[in-house]
Amino acid sequence: MPQELRAVGWTGNSLALIDQTLLPHRNETRDVRDVDTLVDAIQRLVVRGAPAIGAAGAYGVALALLQGEREGWTEDQVRAAVARIREARPTAVNLMVCVDRVMTRFEEGLEAVLEEAAAVQREDVDGNRAMGAHGADWLLKRVAGTVGDRPLRVLTHCNTGALATAGWGTALGVIRELHARGRLEVVYADETRPLLQGSRLTAWELVQEGIPHYVQADGAAAGTILRGEVDAAIVGADRIAANGDTANKVGTVGVALACADAGIPFLVAAPTTTVDLATATGDDIHIELRGEDEVLEWSGVRTAPAGSRGHNPAFDVTPGRLVTGLVTERGVLEVSAGELPVDRLK
Amino acid sequence: MPQELRAVGWTGNSLALIDQTLLPHRNETRDVRDVDTLVDAIQRLVVRGAPAIGAAGAYGVALALLQGEREGWTEDQVRAAVARIREARPTAVNLMVCVDRVMTRFEEGLEAVLEEAAAVQREDVDGNRAMGAHGADWLLKRVAGTVGDRPLRVLTHCNTGALATAGWGTALGVIRELHARGRLEVVYADETRPLLQGSRLTAWELVQEGIPHYVQADGAAAGTILRGEVDAAIVGADRIAANGDTANKVGTVGVALACADAGIPFLVAAPTTTVDLATATGDDIHIELRGEDEVLEWSGVRTAPAGSRGHNPAFDVTPGRLVTGLVTERGVLEVSAGELPVDRLK
Repeated sequence: MPQELRAVGWTGNSLALIDQTLLPHRNETRDVRDVDTLVDAIQRLVVRGAPAIGAAGAYGVALALLQGEREGWTEDQVRAAVARIREARPTAVNLMVCVDRVMTRFEEGLEAVLEEAAAVQREDVDGNRAMGAHGADWLLKRVAGTVGDRPLRVLTHCNTGALATAGWGTALGVIRELHARGRLEVVYADETRPLLQGSRLTAWELVQEGIPHYVQADGAAAGTILRGEVDAAIVGADRIAANGDTANKVGTVGVALACADAGIPFLVAAPTTTVDLATATGDDIHIELRGEDEVLEWSGVRTAPAGSRGHNPAFDVTPGRLVTGLVTERGVLEVSAGELPVDRLK
Repeated sequence: MPQELRAVGWTGNSLALIDQTLLPHRNETRDVRDVDTLVDAIQRLVVRGAPAIGAAGAYGVALALLQGEREGWTEDQVRAAVARIREARPTAVNLMVCVDRVMTRFEEGLEAVLEEAAAVQREDVDGNRAMGAHGADWLLKRVAGTVGDRPLRVLTHCNTGALATAGWGTALGVIRELHARGRLEVVYADETRPLLQGSRLTAWELVQEGIPHYVQADGAAAGTILRGEVDAAIVGADRIAANGDTANKVGTVGVALACADAGIPFLVAAPTTTVDLATATGDDIHIELRGEDEVLEWSGVRTAPAGSRGHNPAFDVTPGRLVTGLVTERGVLEVSAGELPVDRLK
């Protein structure tokens, strides 16, 4: 993926979002000019990935101001519209953090809001780059005793690349860094049902980068790890509690359990904006239940029998005791060894 | 599902197989009259599930005899055809056991072969019924301390019902027995990618039985278990080693790891023909790697990007240390507590 390609971009008076529901077959950009369309885009996963949603929400404040101007809204109406953007997806904390940050400059007007949103996006990319370096340094040191100098075989779940962020990647940023250092053999990309972000988006980014990879069913992850075919797993996060419990795409905790059983590192890569010290533990994280049809249908065609119900939690919580390393732009916390966000990220 | 409905039936001169690739939308039966068609049906999963494949293989010996008669084969040619059936899928041991059993009467001719195949099928159904009772007895006793008298919430993976057996079910037989006793609240049926046996087949059987259930993505299993929404998991098996290591549909070991972490029972229900004492441990079980397209495509339409490779192991191995109970027609072995097949099933 060329570095210039951005999942989220500001055109000057609208938000340009790559429609991630159409990838990998069509690469189309949607021009978003009003708050309803943005909320819908966030909820339908046109834009997805906690940091990318955060950037979209940051620019969303500017959208609300512009729409308010066009349509003669009161300030309260603009603030209510911003609140709707802020609440568009309940699990990801970045969205709320980024919207709140931009809102600190709301009174200063559009220019200031845009300046802050651009800073959110720029800092995310810079943070991702730092995260990639910290994660690769830590991981290569960690596995040196067993792996020696050979390139690593890593497993990832869902999409955490340029499409999921403001432009580089969290977990996939660490993977890109390993590749750049010549220390990556292959990536096992879990397909990530029900919406196939791994197969559609991660694999697409890996193809663009020329990184060797296999797409596999989510159910294959644990067996692949237990058979010794993987040296480490690296995933992203949507919200991290003060004790290191981590909400991420459904399927993540199964990967973490397998890594713990196999004795290989399980890394979470996420910006510090994903850490919510106000959330004490994973029990306090609200898990979004999405529509049943996502799991009962495929492309609008029913696959399950009529009469079946679907259970579709979008996320799960990985206990901090299973998180070997939490990589942020500031460095690595060894959470399972007792380095908790609540103590180290104040 | 009416009990009379059989995945595998003998018509008098051919094998009637419900085409499980078409369910749940079409319920069609294929009339199989020659060995090539049978081998193809086994490999394409027209008939699937270790015990059902075993029954089909048993009748396959009769098919080979009949085809040999029609086409003037030598005895060596008939035996070579039987060997091809026996090897049609490498992981399931029942197929080999059932074919070998019927072959002990090969010299006696067609009538004897058919008698033995019918016995294989009848004994499988009887064994499944016994397994259901043993499994339900053991499980209800095991969870009585935590669950009391309330109905259970159980999770299953893949399809192990009437469609997968000679007519009743292994893991799903235990579940049907719990339902018959009024002790079943709900079933979480993992969809079981890539071929959706859970969503297409298990859910279909549950609808026929009027058993409340949710279909969920395979990645949701671990989170559902760790959140305390499940009282026990019950799965089938394709091959069980002497030490209790169990090969079953890919995704099973992830369920087992989650059950161990949550401290709930993980049951394997399988006939003793699935236990292969000649296989010392799971390391000696050959895991079938199926075609990449199963994971890269959906209904013949590519979902992954061009340029991606697929990794598609059909099975994984659950270590015996994670198997709380192994239910066979003879009773329950508490494998993780040290009751190993090698000692108890000689």
